[in-house]
Amino acid sequence: MKIKTIHDVHHCFDHALEPQETISSGDTRRFDILDASGGLITRHSQADALTRLPAGELNPVCGPLYMEDAEPGDVIEVELVDFEPGQWGWTGLIPGFGLLADDFTSPWLKVSEYDSESVYFDEDIVIPFRPFAGTIGLAPAEPGQHSIVPPRICGGNLDIRDLVKGARLYLPVQVKGGLLSIGDTHACQGDGEVCGTAVETRMAATATLRLHKAGNIPAPMFDVPPGASSEEDAGFLVTTGVGPDLMQGARDAVRFMIDRLHRQAGMDEQLAYALCSVAGRLRVSEIVDQPNWVVSFYMPRSIFRSKSLRAI
Amino acid sequence: MKIKTIHDVHHCFDHALEPQETISSGDTRRFDILDASGGLITRHSQADALTRLPAGELNPVCGPLYMEDAEPGDVIEVELVDFEPGQWGWTGLIPGFGLLADDFTSPWLKVSEYDSESVYFDEDIVIPFRPFAGTIGLAPAEPGQHSIVPPRICGGNLDIRDLVKGARLYLPVQVKGGLLSIGDTHACQGDGEVCGTAVETRMAATATLRLHKAGNIPAPMFDVPPGASSEEDAGFLVTTGVGPDLMQGARDAVRFMIDRLHRQAGMDEQLAYALCSVAGRLRVSEIVDQPNWVVSFYMPRSIFRSKSLRAI
Repeated sequence: MKIKTIHDVHHCFDHALEPQETISSGDTRRFDILDASGGLITRHSQADALTRLPAGELNPVCGPLYMEDAEPGDVIEVELVDFEPGQWGWTGLIPGFGLLADDFTSPWLKVSEYDSESVYFDEDIVIPFRPFAGTIGLAPAEPGQHSIVPPRICGGNLDIRDLVKGARLYLPVQVKGGLLSIGDTHACQGDGEVCGTAVETRMAATATLRLHKAGNIPAPMFDVPPGASSEEDAGFLVTTGVGPDLMQGARDAVRFMIDRLHRQAGMDEQLAYALCSVAGRLRVSEIVDQPNWVVSFYMPRSIFRSKSLRAI
Repeated sequence: MKIKTIHDVHHCFDHALEPQETISSGDTRRFDILDASGGLITRHSQADALTRLPAGELNPVCGPLYMEDAEPGDVIEVELVDFEPGQWGWTGLIPGFGLLADDFTSPWLKVSEYDSESVYFDEDIVIPFRPFAGTIGLAPAEPGQHSIVPPRICGGNLDIRDLVKGARLYLPVQVKGGLLSIGDTHACQGDGEVCGTAVETRMAATATLRLHKAGNIPAPMFDVPPGASSEEDAGFLVTTGVGPDLMQGARDAVRFMIDRLHRQAGMDEQLAYALCSVAGRLRVSEIVDQPNWVVSFYMPRSIFRSKSLRAI
């Protein structure tokens, strides 16, 4: 059976938007998802193209779809069935955006080729291809146009790296029909998406959508399928931030990792920051020993292919 | 060669404490570590024993050891060589302590048996035995007595679940000799140690201690050995907290996981909270999409041994 494809995009969440289609629980749809720049960044773009991106048109999402019988209090399940890879993606440092925006003020852009196994991020750095959709969301209850950028309790730009093939995301319905949209496909991303971008790429995603009446959940929840977290384990380099504020701890841990990669392996700092964004893991190791918490930033050693990187 | 054992404990970090011993870079020592209650909680204790623990004597640490030639600006490496398991440990909800202290106000205590493979946490819940030391630290530069409870940039009660056998922790030296102490051994723990306790247990730990002159690091860093993160992967249940504050996001995600386990599998809420503390993973999935961040709490399915739990 041919699966129907959703092509049209929109640039804000708004429950007054006209749905593309009304669907029933159990329906499967294919979404033809543009990259976060809406196609404006090409294989041949230079870094300064990042400074000219039109803010209102970033992160276009496909949809919205109206789920029959969905009402506030219900839950819409999005089972991610398939991703159809493209061939290349981009990672950028965009001035004013990202966890360390104060430290990294110049635009920087990197195009990576990828295949169904690997993202070839740099000469000596190969990251597992692990496609997912960064933005999966329903329309908020509050009227008006809402930016695509921040996620909300009804989902949206969650940027959760584990929403891979086989994962099921559950979103609380806030308005009649739910109004589901999907976008922002990534070839790989670390926890946090710390520089603000992943390996951004156009990709088609297929999802089966189900309605759970009166599911009543307070925020998104999801199930990661067996095996999805089993990667080659060659150990991890880890840096920490210790102190009374988790945000500052996260900044400190990421900054420290960049410094570690720069100092111990001579890695360019902008490349290191982007690498943190596409391959790192951001964990809260300790959150109870008042007044100081421990935020840890993990870099998998398995992605390193050169002697100098392996020697860190 | 017989490895020398350090037995004596102290109850605060203070660079005026008399060192137990002066060691040289490359020396290996065995630490006979008491559990976090200093032996006051026994296999037969009742929950109300948790309300009578003497605050000033909790989390005793073995040491301090004076590292020859160590000076501020240097780094002391602690390579964790071995842990000698005991047989049982305890997990407690202590009133006023823990990420959800406002929700869980009654004392609650659970004793778990364990062996070299598994922690038998509950009839239907078996968690991999993954011993580590919660507290590994140097003396702070600031004079006076400092509580063992909060970690600091020179280490201490870091409670990092990955400081397992084969891991190497690097700590910045703040005073002459560094003054290293180790304590707070755990049979297993999740990220965050969210209820405030892990599976607390007496255990001997062996570590090789090395000095790196002028290492100059701003906070603890560590290396996780290959294979240490490769566990049975039966997938994960995940809840989220979405909003502008990471601490509230963490609270929301953990509270939501407790509710999910309670609602979907009938699990007692206190047990669920303790389970989050000993087996969950606390990640920051997204930290750049202003103004809202996504904190995710992961529960591995591999620990569930009953139909009702596996059906969640």
